[in-house]
Amino acid sequence: MQDKIKIVLVNTSHPGNIGGAARAMKNMGLSQLVLVEPKCFPSDEAVSRASGATDILEQAIVVSTLEEAVADCQLVIGTSARERHIPWPLVDPRQAAELVFTEQLQTAFVFGREDRGLTNEELQRCHYHVHIPSVEGFSSLNLAAAVQVIAYELRMKQLSLLDKPIVSSKWDVPAATTEQIEYLLNHLETVLGDIEFLDPKAPRQVMTRFRRLYQRAQLDQQEVGMLRGMLTAMEKARK
Amino acid sequence: MQDKIKIVLVNTSHPGNIGGAARAMKNMGLSQLVLVEPKCFPSDEAVSRASGATDILEQAIVVSTLEEAVADCQLVIGTSARERHIPWPLVDPRQAAELVFTEQLQTAFVFGREDRGLTNEELQRCHYHVHIPSVEGFSSLNLAAAVQVIAYELRMKQLSLLDKPIVSSKWDVPAATTEQIEYLLNHLETVLGDIEFLDPKAPRQVMTRFRRLYQRAQLDQQEVGMLRGMLTAMEKARK
Repeated sequence: MQDKIKIVLVNTSHPGNIGGAARAMKNMGLSQLVLVEPKCFPSDEAVSRASGATDILEQAIVVSTLEEAVADCQLVIGTSARERHIPWPLVDPRQAAELVFTEQLQTAFVFGREDRGLTNEELQRCHYHVHIPSVEGFSSLNLAAAVQVIAYELRMKQLSLLDKPIVSSKWDVPAATTEQIEYLLNHLETVLGDIEFLDPKAPRQVMTRFRRLYQRAQLDQQEVGMLRGMLTAMEKARK
Repeated sequence: MQDKIKIVLVNTSHPGNIGGAARAMKNMGLSQLVLVEPKCFPSDEAVSRASGATDILEQAIVVSTLEEAVADCQLVIGTSARERHIPWPLVDPRQAAELVFTEQLQTAFVFGREDRGLTNEELQRCHYHVHIPSVEGFSSLNLAAAVQVIAYELRMKQLSLLDKPIVSSKWDVPAATTEQIEYLLNHLETVLGDIEFLDPKAPRQVMTRFRRLYQRAQLDQQEVGMLRGMLTAMEKARK
């Protein structure tokens, strides 16, 4: 789906933002950048801020109108920070990503000028407006940051459709079994008795707290081995 | 909850990124910025990139070690782009926001250096690592962009706990009722018959397509009035 999505930047003033947008796109697996009348492009500052996403900048298409940029698109979503005179279908970034993956259409996300966004006329060429839910009174995101948020939501949606966790830590040791934890707790109770740490007036609560701790921590087998080794060393040290 | 969250930037090289991070934080309702040994701060470039979030920069606390930065925190989450030697509990940004709002603890999100992130020692001081799911082979986000993604997820989580839509378009006219749509479709069918647009061999499919179109569009009452006005004008024009 990502290859059906264009990022369209309208009338961008600062080339650094074009570079930042290219980097954000590449980080999240997007590649089609369209620039509508950029103030300064190509530019060294764009290349510098792209930080390796120069392929996106080299392949970027420069056009002179938004109409041209979205001519072949079937779904056009424009970013908007303000309430408009005529309300328009409005979504948040997560709903926008949902729409894109549900409809599977040639899609453009359109981002406006740094200082005043998209004009009303440009916004009216969009099927939907997307609003990044910033706080009132300080609602305007940096352009590249806005591209980052949209590209991130598209990537999260894409990954959520795969049948695996979005991030996975590939733990290096198998989790302990219930039986291994029980042996550990028995061993611990014996040693705590031997060293007179267990208070005979309230012995059970100490063990309950240890049980809760070690179960909550979801010990792995190496950690159980390590804890039991420590208990054995304590026993030896006493003799 | 937002006031219990610190953003900690470790050993940042480019002051522009500090400014960008401050802007991203303020956009999303965060305010506590802690800088561990920044290379250059305060700085005009940070102020320029903060674009109005100067209050965040002015209130930023500068410390010399990560230990100091997170001393009062109960939950420390470090950003990590790479797989580490010893696996650590790992979450994606959405799960991280979930954790923060579930646990309601004094929390720090820790971001590393632009060129090489956090050291292993720094990462081991974190309860969790958070990984922004970038593509393999181009996985390192701009620092301010990474802060933006985390701050955005925290804001989305916060807003999701309120009993209202995250964004809402406040439509200006009430939606049409079923009865109003039926009158419109009847009116349309009459006019289409009069102007001999309805093909008598397949009249019903045309009306079914118009029904599907107008129902799908979820017409508002003013739009129904406008369409009926147009039909009336067509009728008059024929006479």
